[in-house]
Amino acid sequence: MAALQNRQVKLVARPVGEVKRSDFEFTATPIPKPGPGEVLVKVLYVSLDPAMRGWMNDVKSYVPPIGLGEVMRAGGIGRVTESGDPAFQPGDTVTGLTGVQEYYCVPAKVLTKVDPNLAALPRFLGALGMPGMTAYFGLLDICHPKPGETVVVSGAAGAVGAVVGQIARILGCRVIGIAGAADKCKYLVDELGFDAAVNYKTEDVRKALKSHCPKGIDVYFDNVGGEILDIVLGLIARKARISICGAISQYNSTTGVTGPKNYLSLLVNRARMEGFIVFDYAARYAEGMKAIAAWIAEGKLKAKEDVVPGIETFPETLNKLFRGENFGKLVLQIGEE
Amino acid sequence: MAALQNRQVKLVARPVGEVKRSDFEFTATPIPKPGPGEVLVKVLYVSLDPAMRGWMNDVKSYVPPIGLGEVMRAGGIGRVTESGDPAFQPGDTVTGLTGVQEYYCVPAKVLTKVDPNLAALPRFLGALGMPGMTAYFGLLDICHPKPGETVVVSGAAGAVGAVVGQIARILGCRVIGIAGAADKCKYLVDELGFDAAVNYKTEDVRKALKSHCPKGIDVYFDNVGGEILDIVLGLIARKARISICGAISQYNSTTGVTGPKNYLSLLVNRARMEGFIVFDYAARYAEGMKAIAAWIAEGKLKAKEDVVPGIETFPETLNKLFRGENFGKLVLQIGEE
Repeated sequence: MAALQNRQVKLVARPVGEVKRSDFEFTATPIPKPGPGEVLVKVLYVSLDPAMRGWMNDVKSYVPPIGLGEVMRAGGIGRVTESGDPAFQPGDTVTGLTGVQEYYCVPAKVLTKVDPNLAALPRFLGALGMPGMTAYFGLLDICHPKPGETVVVSGAAGAVGAVVGQIARILGCRVIGIAGAADKCKYLVDELGFDAAVNYKTEDVRKALKSHCPKGIDVYFDNVGGEILDIVLGLIARKARISICGAISQYNSTTGVTGPKNYLSLLVNRARMEGFIVFDYAARYAEGMKAIAAWIAEGKLKAKEDVVPGIETFPETLNKLFRGENFGKLVLQIGEE
Repeated sequence: MAALQNRQVKLVARPVGEVKRSDFEFTATPIPKPGPGEVLVKVLYVSLDPAMRGWMNDVKSYVPPIGLGEVMRAGGIGRVTESGDPAFQPGDTVTGLTGVQEYYCVPAKVLTKVDPNLAALPRFLGALGMPGMTAYFGLLDICHPKPGETVVVSGAAGAVGAVVGQIARILGCRVIGIAGAADKCKYLVDELGFDAAVNYKTEDVRKALKSHCPKGIDVYFDNVGGEILDIVLGLIARKARISICGAISQYNSTTGVTGPKNYLSLLVNRARMEGFIVFDYAARYAEGMKAIAAWIAEGKLKAKEDVVPGIETFPETLNKLFRGENFGKLVLQIGEE
């Protein structure tokens, strides 16, 4: 009988600080039956992203908060098992906001079909998915990097940061990554071709960035916020552009967000700080996908995924992100392919 | 013999917090004699600006700090008394970085001739001077306000803010000003045509802005920083643009600048915060001057100056700015016209 159940992870309490197991309920309900126009998807992998932490808070944001008792929201990839829509056949590989659950039954129109021959499935949640799109549009559209400019990216070994840095390299920029482990820093320089990497856990970040960026920082792609944002603000070049993609250092804060006290460097340096939301670029995802897939095919862009199996490990696996324990795009495996 | 002396105000100590009389030395030195290519100017008025406080700190900024023992830097207007350059005649009215002193002797090329028939002289230090240029380029070039948009300006009764708000009104925006006194707020609405004004000293600024800006804030021109910047960040509309012109609330801080803790609202709202320095627009000052002079002539833009006489009052008069005690562009009268 277990096979007929849909195991789900539901949010039942608003987390304070890092998520705890008791913030979630692990339930099993009957697998839904798709109606006309609906599709049933067996979820194989879901993406674990820093933004998920924000969705759990009861505050107005760019998407509504996850309601208490609702399935934990997550992007995912899976296979169609039953279809009430002629456009989808059992066996099709699809992506969508599947949630952290084993089966997902939705109107066909919210699903996107992908070609599973293009890449291993977890990559569609990384460089070929939202993180890749976030990197592509957040770097190109917000920062407009020019050849020869100095680009700094934080969370550089993460799903978004690694793509940002590699695109900047491809464009002819000098790229410095900030990450939190020696192996990650080595990977950025040796494998991904970054010009330099700074280990924020062991190095004096200001000193290191100052020496790696003798002409100042033209572009900063910020995934972390906090102290590192302040350090970078103190080192920006004239007319610098800062893309505010996220602030993972702040998401579990129980004392409120720390504002960048060096923000007046924007004035002194005639610089700009701008936020963006990847969903606004939905109409252009095809462009981003095509570019990234081509760079991967040409060997110019590499991607790495960190796949952790087991829906039941969701809370602990999510916390790896905030502790910097993942290496590559963090993906939770929900089912066997 | 006194008439042959040049009274000067020199910076002799780095102020901590508000400036004190003991941070300056009041000296009198012989009036210099212009050499070939030089011009001697009798200074009549100097501009007192929030930025002057920053120039006194020993930190790298968009201009070098004022050296200890140097004449206090200030923009000013005066009359040529002797000229070693054929392009200038005694009696010509000129503007330049005169400093806080009675006589200014410089190479002719750093002076700008103005037509004294266009306006009373103090206005060339306000709406027709740097504050006017700051308002014009900082609003138009950084914020690109569109008709129907909601524009909020802080320091709204100040030299820059009053011009910002009036230009926004001329462009067809809805304009809300923030100021620190009932008479200033009344002036903004009754005399300058602002749609509303908020007294930050007596009103709940968040509540007031929320009610005056039901669709959110599209453009914020920030002269003050601090808590008001944070409140505005919490109320911005999607794709909002924030011009960082200054942060007068922070300039006398002895505990460091407070960063905007709501800066992640930039992300949620896909919004932008950008700094600028008016000097970058020097090549376009003529455009700004012409536009503002025309609006003044048409009665669409009003200007107000707060002229305080006496070079010896410099420290106390400057502090009026930071206490919000001036009403209109603060000008120090140095000499009789």
